[in-house]
Amino acid sequence: MSQQDNVVPASHQDLLESNALAHIATIGPDGEPQSTPIWFSWDGQYLRFGHTTARQKYRNLKRDPRVAISIVDQTDPYRYIELRGTVKSIENDEGYAFINSLAKKYMGLDVNPFISPSEQYVVITIEPEHSTKMG
Amino acid sequence: MSQQDNVVPASHQDLLESNALAHIATIGPDGEPQSTPIWFSWDGQYLRFGHTTARQKYRNLKRDPRVAISIVDQTDPYRYIELRGTVKSIENDEGYAFINSLAKKYMGLDVNPFISPSEQYVVITIEPEHSTKMG
Repeated sequence: MSQQDNVVPASHQDLLESNALAHIATIGPDGEPQSTPIWFSWDGQYLRFGHTTARQKYRNLKRDPRVAISIVDQTDPYRYIELRGTVKSIENDEGYAFINSLAKKYMGLDVNPFISPSEQYVVITIEPEHSTKMG
Repeated sequence: MSQQDNVVPASHQDLLESNALAHIATIGPDGEPQSTPIWFSWDGQYLRFGHTTARQKYRNLKRDPRVAISIVDQTDPYRYIELRGTVKSIENDEGYAFINSLAKKYMGLDVNPFISPSEQYVVITIEPEHSTKMG
């Protein structure tokens, strides 16, 4: 039994498998909170999202790897899960494979239309450590 | 011209007037982020939400008044606004007037069905100081 079997209750796994947006909170340079909606993937153990290295959120996570992520059921606004966790790894998104996979999940497209070739993309892998749920 | 005329761009005022959920990020006791979906109101200047004093988020805000709030357009997931701000006031919700008004906004009900009479409710008023938008 992996840690995640405890961290993410079976009752709310479906939210992690849905194509809802996740809202991710990170810590800014002065210890202040930041919040952004993101596309994400979930493999049953880790939550992943893609990012360019130019973004504030990337710099935040390099400095402080702690995150909180809230996801609401798209069909029931009274059901949600909040995950807290830390960055396990940040890896280059070779050939845009990861952000293309998110475009497939969220838009049904093989190629992500938002790619900016001048920017560097990374895959950020989050290990959940705690969860809170409602509904 | 008030500060908020600058802070919240006219192009994204409609998100604050919508009945989307807002996701609010606060800072926990060890400086870690927390994220929760909330009901909110907006009067053109301040964003407000209701809370019981028993909740972690309330204790967080008493300790560190800084928040970040992200709101996504319910009809266009590529449009959002993030507000950063601080708690301006925390007041008792006399007669549940505020949380009843949120039930009216979000559920069309005069009385909030989630009220727990054993708990104390407060109205938390946020003053936006900075915004980021997409779409």
